[in-house]
Amino acid sequence: MCMQTLHVIKIGGNVIDNSENLHRFLKDFTALEGFKILVHGGGKVATQVSESMGVEARMIDGRRITDIDTLRIVTMVYGGLINKNIVAQLQRYGTNAIGLTGADGNFIRAKKRPVKIIDYGFAGDLTENSINPESIGKLLDSGFTPVFCALTHDGEGQLLNTNADTIASALAVALSELYDTTLVYCFEKKGVLQDIDDEDSLIREIDLERYEKLKTDQIIHSGMLPKMDNAFTAISCGVKAVIIGHSDDLGQLKKDKGFGTRLSK
Amino acid sequence: MCMQTLHVIKIGGNVIDNSENLHRFLKDFTALEGFKILVHGGGKVATQVSESMGVEARMIDGRRITDIDTLRIVTMVYGGLINKNIVAQLQRYGTNAIGLTGADGNFIRAKKRPVKIIDYGFAGDLTENSINPESIGKLLDSGFTPVFCALTHDGEGQLLNTNADTIASALAVALSELYDTTLVYCFEKKGVLQDIDDEDSLIREIDLERYEKLKTDQIIHSGMLPKMDNAFTAISCGVKAVIIGHSDDLGQLKKDKGFGTRLSK
Repeated sequence: MCMQTLHVIKIGGNVIDNSENLHRFLKDFTALEGFKILVHGGGKVATQVSESMGVEARMIDGRRITDIDTLRIVTMVYGGLINKNIVAQLQRYGTNAIGLTGADGNFIRAKKRPVKIIDYGFAGDLTENSINPESIGKLLDSGFTPVFCALTHDGEGQLLNTNADTIASALAVALSELYDTTLVYCFEKKGVLQDIDDEDSLIREIDLERYEKLKTDQIIHSGMLPKMDNAFTAISCGVKAVIIGHSDDLGQLKKDKGFGTRLSK
Repeated sequence: MCMQTLHVIKIGGNVIDNSENLHRFLKDFTALEGFKILVHGGGKVATQVSESMGVEARMIDGRRITDIDTLRIVTMVYGGLINKNIVAQLQRYGTNAIGLTGADGNFIRAKKRPVKIIDYGFAGDLTENSINPESIGKLLDSGFTPVFCALTHDGEGQLLNTNADTIASALAVALSELYDTTLVYCFEKKGVLQDIDDEDSLIREIDLERYEKLKTDQIIHSGMLPKMDNAFTAISCGVKAVIIGHSDDLGQLKKDKGFGTRLSK
């Protein structure tokens, strides 16, 4: 059976925090053919709202602690302000978007992170059975384009703050059972660079063999390693390819002109 | 053709602001058979968030002015905080809820209220063609229970604050083309009372003939008149019945024991 194509595309702060970038991106997203899912994280606006409400961000080892006040704020900002404004803009451009958390439709279930040395609060970790692809498929097949924010739930009434990169990857893996799925991470670089300081040194294609060699030669920047390891894990679990590129260049994907760095088997 | 039943149920502050009332209501809502749509307004939490962010509520003639800061807050509170917590709780009780604004799925389009003497800001008024029943029907038929907050959009990227009673009524009218639809307004009284100060004086049934007589005899309280006029308009536009009752009593609807005041032709 020939499966239909699906792109799961994740955007972060460099798109969300800049109105011009966001509009360009949403137009390019609309122009992309086939089934699509957008996943977005937070941005500076969450910090701004926190500050104006007098809620301090608590970080331990560079990771945010989601206490009850922080959860309220991310529910308002991710699930309300950012998500619904993206949906309204997508509707303007002609994408029939529908804005979601993981609680909606029971689409993404997570487990509250267990307290070991650090209590991360209302942070949710995904498990193997977190995502119900058939249920999300019903939305896609009905002509809706899901827009997920970085919130999940535990099935017991509790919303949980969950990493948007992880959500995007898990969605792509689960939906690769039903669709010919490509996972796209948009960020502020053109892709994987041979030389981190030279945007012209973009590596267009990396397969598993080349990835091992790049690691051995220490070409890949340390901050890129976990992202790429996750990408190759997604590929080994059924995702056709993972593309890492600049949000401004998404339009190139439609034209098949080569967009960012394409990772595949 | 025998149409399937649909209940469009609207709740307000007395349910949203009280955790115990809310949980009882959501359990009763879950127990109700057939297709269901929930519509909720705001509550005290919107005022609390406004105050903590230093945004003052501006009212003219008892109506809220939705300036840009107020729109941001209602988008966060209605579309995020209240909506997604209701969805997470409904999932806990077994309702496959999906939380929406009118922008999602382009389900409810509105027009920004024209500026005449007063500029209401980002307030949206519904028109005859605001609602696409087929599109909402796709969600219902896929097994999802929509939960709408009091936000719509103009199709040009602008979210708009819209009265929840009006949204509930417009949804019921539009969906009565496809479903055998009953509109339910939950509030803090048992229903329409013969004597406003006596909760035991509930009037069980009011048809159009009795309504005219109640108005002539000045039995109906003046605050109730616009609500009831709207209800009879909805009925004349295809809604089977409108029920006005206390949110605590919704369980009676399932048992067909008589819940609130039932308005019909």
